[in-house]
Order: sequence, then C-alpha cells, then structure tokens
Amino acid sequence: MTRPPTGELELIAQLAEIFGAAPPEVVLGIADDCAALDLGGPDYLLWTMDSLVEGVHFDLTSMSLIQLGHKSLAVNLSDLAAMGGKAHYALLSLGWPPSRDLSEALEFGEGLAACARNYGVTVIGGDTVSSPQRLAVALTVLGKVPKSEMLQRSGARVGDLVYVTGPLGESAAGLEILRRELKLDPIQREPLIGAYLDPQPQLAAGRLLAREGLASACIDLSDGVATDLMHICQLSGVGARLAATDIPIPSGVRAVAQMIGKDPLELALQGGEDYQLMFTSSPDHVSHLPAVFKQTGLEVPSRVGEIVTGKEVLLITKEKEKIISGGGYEHFRLDPMRSSD
Amino acid sequence: MTRPPTGELELIAQLAEIFGAAPPEVVLGIADDCAALDLGGPDYLLWTMDSLVEGVHFDLTSMSLIQLGHKSLAVNLSDLAAMGGKAHYALLSLGWPPSRDLSEALEFGEGLAACARNYGVTVIGGDTVSSPQRLAVALTVLGKVPKSEMLQRSGARVGDLVYVTGPLGESAAGLEILRRELKLDPIQREPLIGAYLDPQPQLAAGRLLAREGLASACIDLSDGVATDLMHICQLSGVGARLAATDIPIPSGVRAVAQMIGKDPLELALQGGEDYQLMFTSSPDHVSHLPAVFKQTGLEVPSRVGEIVTGKEVLLITKEKEKIISGGGYEHFRLDPMRSSD
Repeated sequence: MTRPPTGELELIAQLAEIFGAAPPEVVLGIADDCAALDLGGPDYLLWTMDSLVEGVHFDLTSMSLIQLGHKSLAVNLSDLAAMGGKAHYALLSLGWPPSRDLSEALEFGEGLAACARNYGVTVIGGDTVSSPQRLAVALTVLGKVPKSEMLQRSGARVGDLVYVTGPLGESAAGLEILRRELKLDPIQREPLIGAYLDPQPQLAAGRLLAREGLASACIDLSDGVATDLMHICQLSGVGARLAATDIPIPSGVRAVAQMIGKDPLELALQGGEDYQLMFTSSPDHVSHLPAVFKQTGLEVPSRVGEIVTGKEVLLITKEKEKIISGGGYEHFRLDPMRSSD
Repeated sequence: MTRPPTGELELIAQLAEIFGAAPPEVVLGIADDCAALDLGGPDYLLWTMDSLVEGVHFDLTSMSLIQLGHKSLAVNLSDLAAMGGKAHYALLSLGWPPSRDLSEALEFGEGLAACARNYGVTVIGGDTVSSPQRLAVALTVLGKVPKSEMLQRSGARVGDLVYVTGPLGESAAGLEILRRELKLDPIQREPLIGAYLDPQPQLAAGRLLAREGLASACIDLSDGVATDLMHICQLSGVGARLAATDIPIPSGVRAVAQMIGKDPLELALQGGEDYQLMFTSSPDHVSHLPAVFKQTGLEVPSRVGEIVTGKEVLLITKEKEKIISGGGYEHFRLDPMRSSD
C-alpha cells in the first residue's frame, strides 16, 4: 500500500504512479506545465487544464466577472507560454451557483472572449453545470509548439543564469491592497491591482525564447519564485542561488510590504500569481539575450541568479544565505484565501 | 444587449455567440458531444470536457470514491462514443475538500485508472486544487475518429429509424433504490445499481456504427431520451415518434417505478444517465444492422421509433400521442439532487 500523501505534490506524484506509464507519443505528462503529445507533423500538441474555485483562487468581492473570465483563460495560457507554445483552442466548463443570476455568466463570457481575442485563441465549446455555493471554472486549452523548440522545466545546467520576464510581487501586493483596503498613490496602485486582476500571459516572451533557443529551462510563475524555481531544480537535478539585490521589486510592492509589515522579498519570492516566465539561460547568451528582447519590443528580462550544484534554492542577502525552497503556495497546506466555511 | 438567459441551453447558445465564429479547422464546436478539430492527417481530433460536482452529479453517501473515479471518466468517454471515436488521453483536475483525507484521493485515482485501462485511455496529467465543502471533478479527454466516419447529432432524415444500444431507465431506477433504500430482488437490483454507479461507455458500439456507416445521427443518453432525442431533432431539422411499447424497460425498472408510484416510461425516457447511445439509421439497414452487432458480439440495439417531419418528439401509447420534447434534465431548471445548501 502507498502511504498517505501529505500534500499536493506528493498526491500528484502518487496519482501519476497509479495512472501508470504513458505511451511514447506522450512527450511530457504530469510533471510539466502542459502535457505535450506527438501526433505527427512538425509540432507537438500542447494541452493544459486549470481549475479556479471561488474563495480559494478568486474572490468576487474584489474581482468582477469580466475580470474573472479574463484571468481564467490567462492562467491557462501562461502554462503554454512556459513551453514556448502558441495557444489555439479552449473549452470551458462553468460551475454556476443557482443563487447567482444567469445573465452574469454572460459577463464572465465577455471577459473570457476578450482574453481569447487578445491572444488569438478560439473558445470552441463548453458546458455549464450547477455548482451550489461557489462559482468554479475549469478551462482546458490546446496549443502547439515546433518540436525542436519546446521549452521544459528539466533543462537547467550548472552555470546557467536565472531570469524573470518582469517585476515580481505585484500580484501579491495587489491582492493585499484589495483585501486590506490599503491607500496607495494611484500611480503605484494601478499596476499592482492590474497584475492581480488582469494578468497578462507572457506568450510573446515564451515564443521568442523558444524560437531563438535562448532558454535551457522555463516555468511560469504561478506559485511563487521559491516554489517554481524549485520545480526547475528538482527536474533538472540542480540547485539555484538568487541575489536579493537583483530581484525586480517595484516601488509599489515595497510600499505595500511596509504598510503590512512584511519583507518585500517575501511578496516577490513567495507571493505567487505573477504569471511572468522564469527561465534559465546559458551564460553564452548573456549579451545577446537583452538585445533580442529589445529588438522585438519586449521588456528585457531581469537576471536574478544562477544555477549551481545542489538541491536547494538559496537566497543571498547582504547578511546571509538562506534556503527558500519549499516555500510559496502549497494548495493543501496553507489556508485558502477565506477559511470561513 | 442580449436578453438574460433562462436556462442552460440558452446560456450556452448566448456564450457561443459571444465567443464568435471558429476557424475552419474547427469542424464541430459547442453544439455536439465533443469538439472536432482537423489538424491534418486522416483523423479528426475529438476533444471533450465534463465536470461533476458533489451533491449535484453524485453523492458520496451512496457511491464510493473508486466508483466516482470510474464514472468521472466514463461519462467523458461516452461523449466520444457518440462521435464514433476512440478515446486516447485524459487530463484530470480534482477539486478536493480540505476536510476530506488526502489518501481518499488515491481511491478516486484507482477508480479512474481502472476505467482508463478498460478503455485503452492514458491519464497523462492533472492538477489538484482545494475545493471547500464539495468534491469536484473536471476531466478533459482527447480521442480520434477517421474523418469519413465521424458521427454527429445533425444527420437524421425523415424516414430513418431510431435505436438505442441498451435498456433504458436502469440508472434512474438505481439512483431511486439508493436514495429511498428500496428493497428489491438482488437479480433485479444489481444491474440497476451498476448502471448508476458504474456506467459503461458504449465505445465499441459507437466505433461499429461509425466504421460500418450505419448511423445518420448519434448522441449519448446523458440527459434522458426525451431531451437527447430533441437535440438530434433540432440539429437535424426533423421530429421523432417513439412507440411506448418498443421502449426497452427491464423488469427491475418497472418494479422500482411501481414502488415509487411513477410511470416506468418516465424513468426510461426522462431519467437520464443511461449512457447508452441513441442513433438514427436509414431503413435500408434494418435487416443488416442487427446482424452486424451480433457478429461483433455486441448487444443488438432496440428499435424505438422513427424520424418524422416536425419539430417535436412524440410518444405513442395505446391511448394517445403526447409531446415529450423539452422534458428530461435541465441543469438550472430542475432541483439538484440535494437542495439542502
């Protein structure tokens, strides 16, 4: 008998064992952002599914249904971005509380459709089911990536540099502003609220990294840098060192951290939901990489650390080195957003 | 402005409008059991997703987690059966209540894996999320069907005969036995309980119909004959007449109907969840069709009616003709299984 799982990651690993080995055309299965299938032709088919549950992943007191529709698709597209893929089709399953007006489901649909149009995705179907108490959204997305270009979590090598495609901690800070009704200068406030309510999947950056062969490993930042970098490390058999002074933390995130008495690094590294890409890249590309991003009109990624031997993610501050792997958000370990059930 | 939707079907139609037209490689979208994509090669890619919510679609007081795992996949596979397809891959998203022991999720996984093995499907990934109060399962499945063979809901023609691949009302009767703790002879009881707890998707029958070109339209019986036949009629622009005396109702279903004071035809035509296939077939095949099923070792389908001009599904009894279209289960209109929320 298998021993009882103690958390989500262990449960997923044990389920993978129960489900057994996949046939050879399944290039990537349970361990990456998307499954990848080789069904013939020059591309892999990428396939992902994500569920969002009211009160756990979102809260409709601070988020409109239009924003929820947008974000539901965006978090799925972020998984495809991490593989260097292009997104094509989506199917929706919408769990709707009978107490909520059905016409509001159309607002959700408008937000979903707007996100789909932004990223060239067609929503080709779906069903609705009754979901007492809580609204729940499940979305599955199909995309493609040229076989020779696919990015994975497993390719990081010792000596590679670690980058992120944008600022960190914004979404976590935005959520704190909404939950605690913090007062902030609008110029600082807007990008944080936007990062939380209206995340932008980094499909263009992922495609660029893939096409130009610039990333040895890649993941999207959904759970937080500490946890997500650990996924790369575990699958690549390496460790990582992050330099605290190199972490791109906007002034708004620092302001929020001060207001709530937290270390800004905690918001940036363990906040989660940034939906930026984190990738590793050979030092050979160190001068080339910023130029390629600039040419394409994309924000130049920030270098935040390096891949080292070992099994841990270390954070280097002025005072000390500390292990930060195993932090971040673990679905069944931490409290959900609201625990009043 | 769109007017507010009054039920699930209207909501789905309005969402389809919001999502807009699909590109030409999307052969079937929101209106059929599965989406069908032409990504090149001799087959269409079939893609479906279904969600099951505790207290709406299942009740863990009468169903084990192993059975739930089995049934969650079976209902998705039934959608592919209705297209004449073969199922290949599945992704799982499991919404797990924090109050429920995580090790029970492995029982769910065992049931899912057993169903997958039975039907040659590989479960290649998935995630788990916290779902306060209610267990929720979302599954998405990919399959294939040769392009020239795909079955649809839209092909029924006036004069075609209507068939079902097996007995009707068993699942609804099984649910009544469990809910009301009815006492029944075990020989009558077991197939009914089995039909409810452990439905068998009719993939072999669907493939046979597709390969032999025997069906002009096909659907799987999830909502009930009355509703599901209406889907065929609407998409085919026809009506249908069912002969009450030809409806295959097992003696156990009749016994349960008597015990609860219902017409057995109500269980058979509006009970839902039979997961048999209902299909239409040209009268040219009338003698050939049973022989083909016998040769393959499959149960011979029952002829239950015919396609006529009109827009309604009629039931012909000894006494009268009555319209039964629009009955069956409509997710937002009828009470969910339990209303104690």
